[in-house]
Amino acid sequence: MDISKFKHSIKRRVRTYEVDYQGIVHNSNYLRYFEDGRIEYRRNLNSTLTSSGFFTDGTKIVVVHNSIDYFSPSYLDEELEIFTRISWIKNSSFCFENIIIVRDKLICNGKGILVNINYDDIPENLPELAIKQIKEFEGDNLEIRQ
Amino acid sequence: MDISKFKHSIKRRVRTYEVDYQGIVHNSNYLRYFEDGRIEYRRNLNSTLTSSGFFTDGTKIVVVHNSIDYFSPSYLDEELEIFTRISWIKNSSFCFENIIIVRDKLICNGKGILVNINYDDIPENLPELAIKQIKEFEGDNLEIRQ
Amino acid sequence: MDISKFKHSIKRRVRTYEVDYQGIVHNSNYLRYFEDGRIEYRRNLNSTLTSSGFFTDGTKIVVVHNSIDYFSPSYLDEELEIFTRISWIKNSSFCFENIIIVRDKLICNGKGILVNINYDDIPENLPELAIKQIKEFEGDNLEIRQ
Amino acid sequence: MDISKFKHSIKRRVRTYEVDYQGIVHNSNYLRYFEDGRIEYRRNLNSTLTSSGFFTDGTKIVVVHNSIDYFSPSYLDEELEIFTRISWIKNSSFCFENIIIVRDKLICNGKGILVNINYDDIPENLPELAIKQIKEFEGDNLEIRQ
Repeated sequence: MDISKFKHSIKRRVRTYEVDYQGIVHNSNYLRYFEDGRIEYRRNLNSTLTSSGFFTDGTKIVVVHNSIDYFSPSYLDEELEIFTRISWIKNSSFCFENIIIVRDKLICNGKGILVNINYDDIPENLPELAIKQIKEFEGDNLEIRQ
Repeated sequence: MDISKFKHSIKRRVRTYEVDYQGIVHNSNYLRYFEDGRIEYRRNLNSTLTSSGFFTDGTKIVVVHNSIDYFSPSYLDEELEIFTRISWIKNSSFCFENIIIVRDKLICNGKGILVNINYDDIPENLPELAIKQIKEFEGDNLEIRQ
Repeated sequence: MDISKFKHSIKRRVRTYEVDYQGIVHNSNYLRYFEDGRIEYRRNLNSTLTSSGFFTDGTKIVVVHNSIDYFSPSYLDEELEIFTRISWIKNSSFCFENIIIVRDKLICNGKGILVNINYDDIPENLPELAIKQIKEFEGDNLEIRQ
Repeated sequence: MDISKFKHSIKRRVRTYEVDYQGIVHNSNYLRYFEDGRIEYRRNLNSTLTSSGFFTDGTKIVVVHNSIDYFSPSYLDEELEIFTRISWIKNSSFCFENIIIVRDKLICNGKGILVNINYDDIPENLPELAIKQIKEFEGDNLEIRQ
């Protein structure tokens, strides 16, 4: 993944309960960090998650795929920088990519494919407004899939 | 707490992601283990938790207090024995006590006060059936508070 | 607890994986939030946690007691304000108090008793520097126990 | 993935704190369930995890890749069946595959690539005994990579 394509990042410190018996962040927690980054990415586009499970832009999201490659461990109290972008959108689905670094060291990267669903849990086209905002934010880095 | 008053226990192994940077189970996880024990205690009285948040005996429970004393750490892959009893009941509330041991070593003990609520989140008297089952199970060890 | 005695607080948002089947933050997570607050409180006194398990001021801490009272639930994506103070110190032990609020609503409060230990896991008097810094920060609100 | 190739499974109930704001198991927790299955798989081959981070067969494992596809959500208190197999081994690395079902419903499947490391965190060939045990257990389903 090419970090120069990422326009959004957050910082977040590794907490005591996220480090495991090996003295490193447990591998499952990076999916949580990715999700933290994805929610802040969307907040930055003015869409926030409500307790109904819907975002304020009308989307409701389920994760259908996650993959992650681990390069270096991260440790207690380190400040992670979590980069997030949307790499492609297609009707009802889209793909987040994430990179996590600590200072200049690559910790891991990964991607998640998400699907927009309606009240009946049926896939539904992404709202026009959401597509427009993502296009404007990502610009030429966004792939539109048919 | 007097372990001879406890008539219910479960066993549960310490998992990799529950051990923290100090190489011991993180202090917050014992509240989770207590809750595991409490839910199995209730299953043993034929009441199971449904995804609506209600148990099948009609109760819905919120926690209003937890306290816990830690005596010895527990470690990766150890098999915990989690003891659970109800020590008192009172109109809409009741008290769980828990002890966790590993082999003969006391790890921690604690108690939680829980309140039964209705659909509108208002405290509601415990159902007669639930009271009857708890009384039968706990016998003379149960205190009835007014 | 009297919030006017608290001179330190942090803000922290409720994350998706911290909300449970009842749609509210799981009761165990507040102990994690307390700990987040306590570590930032100490960072504010120039002592940070290293991956050896020791803080940079030479202390190593184990938790021997936690208690918590829950007043109102908190929800997804809410911004918690976590207040932390040290209410008393005594030879090798000391007591943290915490209050969590969301806007003007009291969510929970609690306290934890911690013990300073050495390399052999034996209780050891708190370092003079740590005591001095805590006294200066807390002022008259700090109780010195014998 | 072909479930007929899996010779090992464990059962594990979904806990209250593993269900998120959407009322379903949080996507990150399946990596934890996979790991629970993998550790029990190895216990079944007489290798257990010690608090040093080493298994008793002399291996120490780091995860370098995880991927997971989600097909159906799982819910509070459901009993998951977690299937585990090793699909290939190669010098210092090997691949776990996992499938999770609830009754007859496919919840998710995924794979993880792990690397055996030594005291200095350098990749090291898998011990002969470990290879022998995996070959005997998996039989013709195991691919040996060069």
